[in-house]
Amino acid sequence: MTATLIDGKAFAAKMRARVADEVARVKAAGIVPGLAVVLVGEDPASAVYVRNKGKQTLEVGMESFEHKLPIDTSEADLLDLIATLNADPAVHGILCQLPVPDHIDADKVLAAIDPAKDVDGFHVSNVGLLATGQKAMVPCTPLGCLMMLRDLHGSLSGMDAVVVGRSNIVGKPMAQLLLRDSCTVTIAHSRTKNIEDVVRRADIVVAAVGRPEMVTGDWIKPGATVIDVGINRIGAGLKDDGSPKTRLVGDCHFESCAAVAGAITPVPGGVGPMTIACLLANTLTACCRANGLAEPEGLTA
Amino acid sequence: MTATLIDGKAFAAKMRARVADEVARVKAAGIVPGLAVVLVGEDPASAVYVRNKGKQTLEVGMESFEHKLPIDTSEADLLDLIATLNADPAVHGILCQLPVPDHIDADKVLAAIDPAKDVDGFHVSNVGLLATGQKAMVPCTPLGCLMMLRDLHGSLSGMDAVVVGRSNIVGKPMAQLLLRDSCTVTIAHSRTKNIEDVVRRADIVVAAVGRPEMVTGDWIKPGATVIDVGINRIGAGLKDDGSPKTRLVGDCHFESCAAVAGAITPVPGGVGPMTIACLLANTLTACCRANGLAEPEGLTA
Repeated sequence: MTATLIDGKAFAAKMRARVADEVARVKAAGIVPGLAVVLVGEDPASAVYVRNKGKQTLEVGMESFEHKLPIDTSEADLLDLIATLNADPAVHGILCQLPVPDHIDADKVLAAIDPAKDVDGFHVSNVGLLATGQKAMVPCTPLGCLMMLRDLHGSLSGMDAVVVGRSNIVGKPMAQLLLRDSCTVTIAHSRTKNIEDVVRRADIVVAAVGRPEMVTGDWIKPGATVIDVGINRIGAGLKDDGSPKTRLVGDCHFESCAAVAGAITPVPGGVGPMTIACLLANTLTACCRANGLAEPEGLTA
Repeated sequence: MTATLIDGKAFAAKMRARVADEVARVKAAGIVPGLAVVLVGEDPASAVYVRNKGKQTLEVGMESFEHKLPIDTSEADLLDLIATLNADPAVHGILCQLPVPDHIDADKVLAAIDPAKDVDGFHVSNVGLLATGQKAMVPCTPLGCLMMLRDLHGSLSGMDAVVVGRSNIVGKPMAQLLLRDSCTVTIAHSRTKNIEDVVRRADIVVAAVGRPEMVTGDWIKPGATVIDVGINRIGAGLKDDGSPKTRLVGDCHFESCAAVAGAITPVPGGVGPMTIACLLANTLTACCRANGLAEPEGLTA
């Protein structure tokens, strides 16, 4: 391995410490930033994620409001709760954990969240504000990637960036952010021809496709920076007792990419920890905007 | 010249005829589609453009509402007019001709237009809907480019597209539309390094930078399709009486590009005529959506 390891865990901890300092400053002005997280049903992965969010929210000194609703909650009841949270001045950020059960229209729920409190950045108004270069709430995962890239490179202007994947949650907002920072941006996806040649042109590769170890070292230009957004659980042989073992891998094949890249994020410990750190940063930003306080520097795009 | 000439004038005429047929159908159901155009001040270019829009609106059988306001109109009065038009059921599309005078905040005016009547597609909600793959009002110029590309190629899936320029009005929505049609999309701009190499990779080049004849034939891959959005007036020697002559050129150097490309739009007569045709199509689409009528096929993205 020749690549520098980008330590997302350490970077996220630094960012949370920064958020905690700023929360203390806001509290001194008599305001307590608050984040409401809504979870419908009992998906175990979502439950773990919501628990981590709540824990880290408290650790930086914010208020955490958890709303766990039964799986048979009606869409109308969920929309009522969103309306209540929209109107609650103690709540500065609202996040509805996805996926929601099938009988609820996720787009409708996202559209119901006050854009000013939409700390996930998924509301169409925030998507449009980001795309037109205006002040927005920026989706947490791509924001975390951008923070790491800026920390590593300073200015990204003129760099060739290739985003692999075109999801609304990562790929497309990531492309907008890189474009805003004046990269030449290419979006590659399942229909892209000769995708390895496209990726090989990149100074910055962001992989966000959800396909385990798809990007291999021969796709990477020597010295490029590789940001791996994927989190995939794959089989890894058997335990001593004969039961199956699993491990987490990214969308990039780590060993071969790390042998060529200039810098790379590991999975786990790369992009993952940055996502919650950015959620906390977004909540603080939303709180400052709602109260006409100066926004802390460097905590959003 | 080896390239096929893409005749935007003829294509736009065909599209207007199609819109006129559909307008007749809607009128038979008792509804008259209506477009309101607001012009503040007396910029001569804007005045010509507004006049053409009004004329073509009537020609396809729609109602045209022109609101010409004096240059010293206050922002508040303009916003009042927008509110009146938003509430008027006879108005299905609203367009405020840009630029507006300096004392008026254009972003505020665009944000005031009901997104369902925003036939320019500049409202952040429409930008967000387009970016997330939902039903939107799509900006007219990039929509016109897409229509011509689909007409020429059928499916665009897997083609390498390079958009030169990253404006909110053309470059960025164009990239979204090409991505939605499954092109591999690169956005190049003033900070792009070796831009000629980037453009030379493209099966589809859309030039929208506003720099006369910037893209030359040696930037074009043999056989590529070149869509020239630029409209630039440049000096062209002197008339017999010694006064200066001018001519319109695009962002592409036509002769050299046409010698290499497979197909190319001329300037004038390429993208230009498509813009108003798409404005009329958008107004019809908005009218159908507002009244719960079936949307005509193939008139939006």
